Amino acid sequence: MKAAMFVKPGTVVVAEAPMPTIEKPTDAIVRIIRACVCGSDLWWFRGISQRKANTFVGHEAIGVVEEVGDDVTAIKPGDFVVVPFTHGCGHCAACRAGFDGNCSNQEPGGNGGYQGQYLRYTNADWGLVPIPGSPADYSDDTLNSLLALSDVMATGYHAAASAEVAQGDTAVVMGDGAVGLCGIIAAKLRGAERIIAMSRHEDRQRLAREFGATDIVAERGDDAVKAVMDLTHGDAADAVLECVGTDQAVQTALQLGRPGSLVGRVGVPQNPQTNTTELFWRNIGLRGGAASVTTYDKDLLLDAVLQHVIDPGKVFTKRFDLDHVQEAYEAMDQRTAIKSLLVISQD
Amino acid sequence: MKAAMFVKPGTVVVAEAPMPTIEKPTDAIVRIIRACVCGSDLWWFRGISQRKANTFVGHEAIGVVEEVGDDVTAIKPGDFVVVPFTHGCGHCAACRAGFDGNCSNQEPGGNGGYQGQYLRYTNADWGLVPIPGSPADYSDDTLNSLLALSDVMATGYHAAASAEVAQGDTAVVMGDGAVGLCGIIAAKLRGAERIIAMSRHEDRQRLAREFGATDIVAERGDDAVKAVMDLTHGDAADAVLECVGTDQAVQTALQLGRPGSLVGRVGVPQNPQTNTTELFWRNIGLRGGAASVTTYDKDLLLDAVLQHVIDPGKVFTKRFDLDHVQEAYEAMDQRTAIKSLLVISQD
Repeated sequence: MKAAMFVKPGTVVVAEAPMPTIEKPTDAIVRIIRACVCGSDLWWFRGISQRKANTFVGHEAIGVVEEVGDDVTAIKPGDFVVVPFTHGCGHCAACRAGFDGNCSNQEPGGNGGYQGQYLRYTNADWGLVPIPGSPADYSDDTLNSLLALSDVMATGYHAAASAEVAQGDTAVVMGDGAVGLCGIIAAKLRGAERIIAMSRHEDRQRLAREFGATDIVAERGDDAVKAVMDLTHGDAADAVLECVGTDQAVQTALQLGRPGSLVGRVGVPQNPQTNTTELFWRNIGLRGGAASVTTYDKDLLLDAVLQHVIDPGKVFTKRFDLDHVQEAYEAMDQRTAIKSLLVISQD
Repeated sequence: MKAAMFVKPGTVVVAEAPMPTIEKPTDAIVRIIRACVCGSDLWWFRGISQRKANTFVGHEAIGVVEEVGDDVTAIKPGDFVVVPFTHGCGHCAACRAGFDGNCSNQEPGGNGGYQGQYLRYTNADWGLVPIPGSPADYSDDTLNSLLALSDVMATGYHAAASAEVAQGDTAVVMGDGAVGLCGIIAAKLRGAERIIAMSRHEDRQRLAREFGATDIVAERGDDAVKAVMDLTHGDAADAVLECVGTDQAVQTALQLGRPGSLVGRVGVPQNPQTNTTELFWRNIGLRGGAASVTTYDKDLLLDAVLQHVIDPGKVFTKRFDLDHVQEAYEAMDQRTAIKSLLVISQD
């Protein structure tokens, strides 16, 4: 079978890979239909984070189950599924509390290789999210939105859930990448009345408005804080979604909320130290981490896509086949695509 | 009139003070019935934090309204009231959101001098909490519990609310001072099924159990983490109340919760920098600050005291009159009292 492989910073190739097999009774083998490139993949593509050479890559997909292990009873061959980047067992304390991104029974390092024809998925029984019918039952646009449920939409939702966006709220969303844009969808889905999107790119501002943003702030840092204060007549936001992860973004995010508000963050943090004493005096909370993909999909996101309440698939602005995976990464790296889709199979 | 005055670290005297008068139309003058000493007062009593010499002290009381400004309509002379350390206006964004501890219309530095015969209280119309009847209608014990609503009980409740303690939860309460003990009351009031109290003093352990603690952990640091993990069979706590404020306590608190849990902290932080990257990878939230005293009292705590559901007044283990205020501070300083009561007037 064929799969995308990281060679060195800036280079991803399509290589011949061994066909995965059931290794544990909780595994499933999934034939991948669509996959995509994540903003977090750019860290190693750009050489900012280390990655071992000649490793298979990708952690977002939809597909059809080929084979399951003996302990997998909720999923059967032929099932069409969302393949989350998380691998929740469904029964540990984290999963029971709805935080399957921190499942204590996850297999370390078992998340690579979704950008290929077949994948071994661990903790398949609870972790995979069954989609009614088969790929052929869905339009191209809906397939894209279903693919978004494997990470980016659930991650945007985690920002909104961590920030506890509630009915009638004014929410600020920092970051106009695919995750931030999905954060806007999530804030609207949770009933935010006013959604202030921070974006300085016209194409992304357009999509932000289409997803539900009511206001756009193009400024950064202190100017961004001033703009949000002006827009809210000094009241500040009820909830802040931090979908960037840089030090500046976190520091700005922590200035945008009213007392009692939470910053929900999903941008992988780069700066380890935060002055939390200042947060104490302002009663500002900081929360976030890896998304609860399976929980959110099963609870509400899959239904929201199937009922066309949300269209997160619109974040895919360029499409490639597996043979052109290098171009898919380059489009993200050069910001000519908001998010790159990889069509692995037509059915 | 007489009032307690800070002279120098270790010395508080009773001094003649000018009778307070209405300065703003939003003020009220309150005749103090009972006041008390706060753990946070020990910072300047011990000389750890700076305080100007010859300043009037105290920020917790119950009393009877003597006079009100022209804009005060909800409160009238003769009303028996809880006198919160906070001064919420009731209409700014913070107050509307239920965080009156961060009211943007508070008068800076207007909080001193509750340990005296009379007090000018700002933002009286919304900030003061009316108690039905008069002091003579209540038992000695109930008066103490009403006094606890001016700070310590509301602060313990803020830890539980910030940690979002919910029905059936396992909560850990760090700190066996009066605030931590009130945190136990609050966790129980919010429906926690299991309450693990961290305490190494027998008298406080006894009161912790009386207030609802189901388990006691006497260890600190890594040993405390291990003890909580053992008690929860490795699941960790659903909510953590941090009622100490030292660096070690915060670092320990951040180890005790399951993924998705919040550390609700009310201990004034001493260490400004926290490694929040680690919190991200574990999906742990950190939140807290000054309590929403008026909000919590009006919402539920006053009713809970009046219906004898909670008895926070039990934290007052020593009683003094105003002339013995020095001894009241010393009893707290030397830990011979959990919290020192000051009886200012008998009616």
